[in-house]
Amino acid sequence: MSHLPVSKTAAAVQPFHVMKILGEAKALEAAGQDIIHLEIGEPDFPSLPCVHEAVNQAMQAGLTHYTPTLGLPALRQKLAEFYGQFYHAQVPMERIMLTPGSSSGLQLLLTAILNPGDKVMLTDPSYPCNRQFVNLLHGQVISVPVDASSQYQLNSDLLQAHWQEGIKVVMVASPANPTGTVIEQTELVKMAQFLAKQNAYLLVDEIYQGLVYQRPAESILAHPNLPDNVLVINSFSKFFGMTGWRLGWLVAPLALMPILDRLGQNLFLAAPTLSQYGALRVLEPDALAQLEERRQAFEMRRNALLNAMQQAGWQVSVQPQGAFYVYWDVSNLTDNAEQLALDILHHAKVAVTPGKDFGEFKAKHHIRLAYTTSPERLTEAVKRITDYLATR
Amino acid sequence: MSHLPVSKTAAAVQPFHVMKILGEAKALEAAGQDIIHLEIGEPDFPSLPCVHEAVNQAMQAGLTHYTPTLGLPALRQKLAEFYGQFYHAQVPMERIMLTPGSSSGLQLLLTAILNPGDKVMLTDPSYPCNRQFVNLLHGQVISVPVDASSQYQLNSDLLQAHWQEGIKVVMVASPANPTGTVIEQTELVKMAQFLAKQNAYLLVDEIYQGLVYQRPAESILAHPNLPDNVLVINSFSKFFGMTGWRLGWLVAPLALMPILDRLGQNLFLAAPTLSQYGALRVLEPDALAQLEERRQAFEMRRNALLNAMQQAGWQVSVQPQGAFYVYWDVSNLTDNAEQLALDILHHAKVAVTPGKDFGEFKAKHHIRLAYTTSPERLTEAVKRITDYLATR
Ligand SMILES: Cc1ncc(COP(=O)(O)O)c(C=O)c1O
Ligand SMILES: Cc1ncc(COP(=O)(O)O)c(C=O)c1O
Repeated sequence: MSHLPVSKTAAAVQPFHVMKILGEAKALEAAGQDIIHLEIGEPDFPSLPCVHEAVNQAMQAGLTHYTPTLGLPALRQKLAEFYGQFYHAQVPMERIMLTPGSSSGLQLLLTAILNPGDKVMLTDPSYPCNRQFVNLLHGQVISVPVDASSQYQLNSDLLQAHWQEGIKVVMVASPANPTGTVIEQTELVKMAQFLAKQNAYLLVDEIYQGLVYQRPAESILAHPNLPDNVLVINSFSKFFGMTGWRLGWLVAPLALMPILDRLGQNLFLAAPTLSQYGALRVLEPDALAQLEERRQAFEMRRNALLNAMQQAGWQVSVQPQGAFYVYWDVSNLTDNAEQLALDILHHAKVAVTPGKDFGEFKAKHHIRLAYTTSPERLTEAVKRITDYLATR
Repeated sequence: MSHLPVSKTAAAVQPFHVMKILGEAKALEAAGQDIIHLEIGEPDFPSLPCVHEAVNQAMQAGLTHYTPTLGLPALRQKLAEFYGQFYHAQVPMERIMLTPGSSSGLQLLLTAILNPGDKVMLTDPSYPCNRQFVNLLHGQVISVPVDASSQYQLNSDLLQAHWQEGIKVVMVASPANPTGTVIEQTELVKMAQFLAKQNAYLLVDEIYQGLVYQRPAESILAHPNLPDNVLVINSFSKFFGMTGWRLGWLVAPLALMPILDRLGQNLFLAAPTLSQYGALRVLEPDALAQLEERRQAFEMRRNALLNAMQQAGWQVSVQPQGAFYVYWDVSNLTDNAEQLALDILHHAKVAVTPGKDFGEFKAKHHIRLAYTTSPERLTEAVKRITDYLATR
């Protein structure tokens, strides 16, 4: 096999380090151990029963063929209305495209924009796949190290301080993975305006939109005088609780839509049809009301976890405002967060994600905790870890 | 907008020309006209009721989360058994990966292999997306013109005649789109063996596997002494009648699997979960028996269409043996198949696909007819076109 060709870029793609933790956690579980999972980046809730009913009806009606590449017109229209109603944003359906997960949305947008050698600015830490999308397109990642001093986020000052020629896209996520922090809308708009002058795009990942606590859910698209360089991706995975359905969407300037359509025709043909019928249903008011209850459940979990961490005297350098993650600063405990994560798994029986999965900057001093389980299990997890740390 | 950056490669991606036909067909239908659709590359049948039941059960059981990137282990295992039982092929589940449509399988494999500048050999005509995958990876397409003299397919002689340094992958499809022709297994194996000596891969698109007429369904994987350079993609779209479910699979050498896994983690996370539960069901014997009935229905359609074409005196230069396409040689009628397709739509009210969508070689002399509708409609379509041609 070694004589057969392989892509250098593809071979350089790193695995998620949490996979090692996951593998060992599974082995421990197979051996009868009770493991608390704080490493899982998806809601534990299944999708809503009303979604299942709608999908059932669509199946019975034989609606199982390819949809248009841009998605079902009715769903694009519904998303346009959703923006109007819940975000006071005027987004015509012509600017909306359904994608097979926002993963494909990210890939599609970057593929539509980048030529080899083009630069993309993003933060360290951030969602790991973004770096790989850029690498696979032979672009260059311009990594801006961020920490608690900027809420682990980019802002207009940082952006300008790190600006360099050749950057075509700046990627942010709000709320972010792995930190759960939010960028204020005014700051986002300032960045968009600066980038517009530089003929560069601002790509805002709003996949955790809706999952915010003690503050309103927002979209950058609500801003009335937004320049035309703003790209948005979103997904039915997180707030809507539909990870396995592989359905997301993107919003792009009208002028990009024909290119995105043609790329989609070739790269994936269309997003999954029944997922689109399910999504039509999940955007109805009664379904959204149920999702609001789930959001409140996440809020209670968040508070339970943060309280327990505080009482245990752990360093929580910023209060996460969204998503379902806390980025735990373990610099007082170790210089090797990956080893600590393994120790915590084996001694405290709690699975967590080492910072290394999200970049390099202070990665060895951070661990991501996902509160995708019950408040009781979260409190129990903190107790287990505290007990273990006391023995070290 | 014009000042904002755009990828040159992405901007160069051509739309499917049939989209124009489709758009005009829809307009005619909206105006009350009865259009016969022979342009549609997917079965008209919906997916099977037993699949819908299985998906319903999976939804009720809350199985709506992400699966592992390689796919549900049970489904990988089931596909391994499927190869053993129906194709007498020994394919361990470790070599099988589920993908969101075989579209993603094609993208994934080429991404795993190609460095910029690497060459990929494929035929003209062939499935149009393959060329775009190569272009988007900054590879170079080596196009081998094929016509009726080689059944519109590559063979070992043609491959060697067109061989050049730098080719890393040769792509074939059997049965093929747009021609429905098959490559004999002995020929495929000869090609694989030649390519193995050149350290290059043979990628066999078996997406129309199972849809063959008057001959047995086959897989190259059945060959006992196959070199390790063979890649296969397949899909639940066509034979299994599950286009909108966006589920395919690939078979690759073990050594490539870790790279494919990591690429998949980043590019799409996982294939749609419920589609995977549906696929588990569709591989059961009773479901396969229903699909065999559908295959017979396609065979009747094929015969009806070919008979009608023959009686009308049309040029059918090769007998298609699989898929659901006839590549109609219209060189005696026009030098502009695209214009003829438009004329046929407007005068005969039949929608067809111009050869241009599949390449350049003799494209202006060919039209693809898809027999994805009833024998009656197929016969009627030939009559309508014949009547129109008589008036020209
Ligand atoms: C910040 C962020 N963006 C995008 C994604 C991709 O999710 P999906 O493809 O399910 O929409 C994820 C998944 O975890 C994420 O955390
Ligand atoms: C030859 C061939 N390969 C691959 C595909 C991709 O199909 P899917 O992504 O639905 O599996 C098609 C679709 O028409 C095709 O004709």
